[in-house]
Amino acid sequence: MSAVPGTADLHAARERLVDRVRRTPLLEVDGAELGVRFPVVLKLELTQHTGSFKVRGALNSLLAAGRAGSGVVAASGGNHGAAVAWAARSLGVGATVFVPATSPAAKIDRVRSFDADVRVVEGYYPAAAAAAAAWAEGRDVLSVPAYDGFDVVCGQASLGLELLEQVPDAAHVVVGCGGGGLFAGVALAGQGAWPVTPVEPAGCPTMHAALAAGRPVDVDVGGVAADSMGAPRIGRYAFAVARQMGTSSALVPGEQVDTARRWLWERCRVLAEPGGAVALAGVMSGAVTLPAGAGTGPVVVVVSGGNTAGDSSTARLA
Amino acid sequence: MSAVPGTADLHAARERLVDRVRRTPLLEVDGAELGVRFPVVLKLELTQHTGSFKVRGALNSLLAAGRAGSGVVAASGGNHGAAVAWAARSLGVGATVFVPATSPAAKIDRVRSFDADVRVVEGYYPAAAAAAAAWAEGRDVLSVPAYDGFDVVCGQASLGLELLEQVPDAAHVVVGCGGGGLFAGVALAGQGAWPVTPVEPAGCPTMHAALAAGRPVDVDVGGVAADSMGAPRIGRYAFAVARQMGTSSALVPGEQVDTARRWLWERCRVLAEPGGAVALAGVMSGAVTLPAGAGTGPVVVVVSGGNTAGDSSTARLA
Repeated sequence: MSAVPGTADLHAARERLVDRVRRTPLLEVDGAELGVRFPVVLKLELTQHTGSFKVRGALNSLLAAGRAGSGVVAASGGNHGAAVAWAARSLGVGATVFVPATSPAAKIDRVRSFDADVRVVEGYYPAAAAAAAAWAEGRDVLSVPAYDGFDVVCGQASLGLELLEQVPDAAHVVVGCGGGGLFAGVALAGQGAWPVTPVEPAGCPTMHAALAAGRPVDVDVGGVAADSMGAPRIGRYAFAVARQMGTSSALVPGEQVDTARRWLWERCRVLAEPGGAVALAGVMSGAVTLPAGAGTGPVVVVVSGGNTAGDSSTARLA
Repeated sequence: MSAVPGTADLHAARERLVDRVRRTPLLEVDGAELGVRFPVVLKLELTQHTGSFKVRGALNSLLAAGRAGSGVVAASGGNHGAAVAWAARSLGVGATVFVPATSPAAKIDRVRSFDADVRVVEGYYPAAAAAAAAWAEGRDVLSVPAYDGFDVVCGQASLGLELLEQVPDAAHVVVGCGGGGLFAGVALAGQGAWPVTPVEPAGCPTMHAALAAGRPVDVDVGGVAADSMGAPRIGRYAFAVARQMGTSSALVPGEQVDTARRWLWERCRVLAEPGGAVALAGVMSGAVTLPAGAGTGPVVVVVSGGNTAGDSSTARLA
């Protein structure tokens, strides 16, 4: 692994992305509504192209590689696959996406809707990743990792750089964490301005396990948000950033994720996918606490994705 | 009818509401995605308390009346009822809401969820309005009209005053129009800054019919957005404002409303109710055109409500 990205790398990525990704909106919420004592700002990243933050890292990877003329390949439970497909299409490049059969049909359909060549692989994410690697071997294609890539992290950092402008007085930023690409990017962007807490579903505690073991380790993943947070181990960039910053992760049980989703729908008419509501669940459950010496500004909570089948999820929410 | 509200009235309402309603977010969208030649900003008012703009007018009516100690009554197909129930609960007052049986179950449940005493009346909105009036007679209660009230219009204007701050260079503002309360408030707020175009579903052309007849006239209402835009005639305030400003309304067929809803869900993960997508349908269909001499700033499109049954609507959208 090369060193973690520096400030210049983050800003270069932002420059590449600025007219191509959406500057997503903020919804200010009274903390009392959430049962907390601080004001909260929701970053509605689910309104991003393709319905999740993943498009930032995917598009930056393609642009940074400068290989707009050749094809790209990715393996993804859904959001990253959709993001790579969208990014490739917007640059006029073909995309092949390997998707585990365990992904929700709505997510697989979403990848197809961006004109990718979708290959469904039996099993979970690692099986799809292995199939993608085997397929890419000997082919002249750019493989875009789902979270643990230099350019992916730099792309996700653009969300953090946006926050520096949008909420200059933020006290704290809270993000969901699967493979840790979003965490790493936002934490690097906010360095010196605000701390970032990664929140993990209890069923996918990759950062937690890595920090306990002193290195990234494999974790059995499952539970409510496994479709978007089912990375089997934390990314090396995310781990390096967490160690460097003395970060600890917050864990939330699956029921709390459901509670947060229901709150978002009932109170804000925001329909997040489970992984998209993990950060808010960390705040609502009390698993995320303000660090000593935190400012009095708002806590920013990223609602990172909305690729859910509206029918089943909303019925469950109602 | 008293005269239309003046600037001081609008600002007084805003002062009453400022810490009680949400300052709703904006989503910037590339006009090319919508097939238009101007930049578009979506005002995501569906993230407002109770899921629609109606809470602004309802809460202002209660606060302006200063009758926090007595009960309130309303008749509403849903959104206004929910707004009155929420406003009353937030001030510790009881609310009785008469709802037509033809309203979607999701909307009726929403009114109940804010602790109102809900009375379901067979038929459409006029039947519920008559029942509410009969019930209120001789009772010491505040009756809050759904759209055609001075304080209602002043409350809805707070959305327009927000826009003056949020999008100072807006070229044009587009809103859905049923009874016209939102149109009247926003048009008064933006006077001299930008013109406002009201968009009506072809099945509920109350403003269109009134402008053609030279006075508010009854219209048979129906179609895709009748649950939130089924007012049988345009409000007197809205008509007066439209005449004063030389406004004409744009009409869109129901299919275009569906197209706009699908676009909001597919491209932005915003789940609007039909009435909430009428303004966008006006823009996407070409029914709304920029007035001659409009500035080069963005066109603001209000997405006014999201009280939809996620299951059925999303299934239809998928």
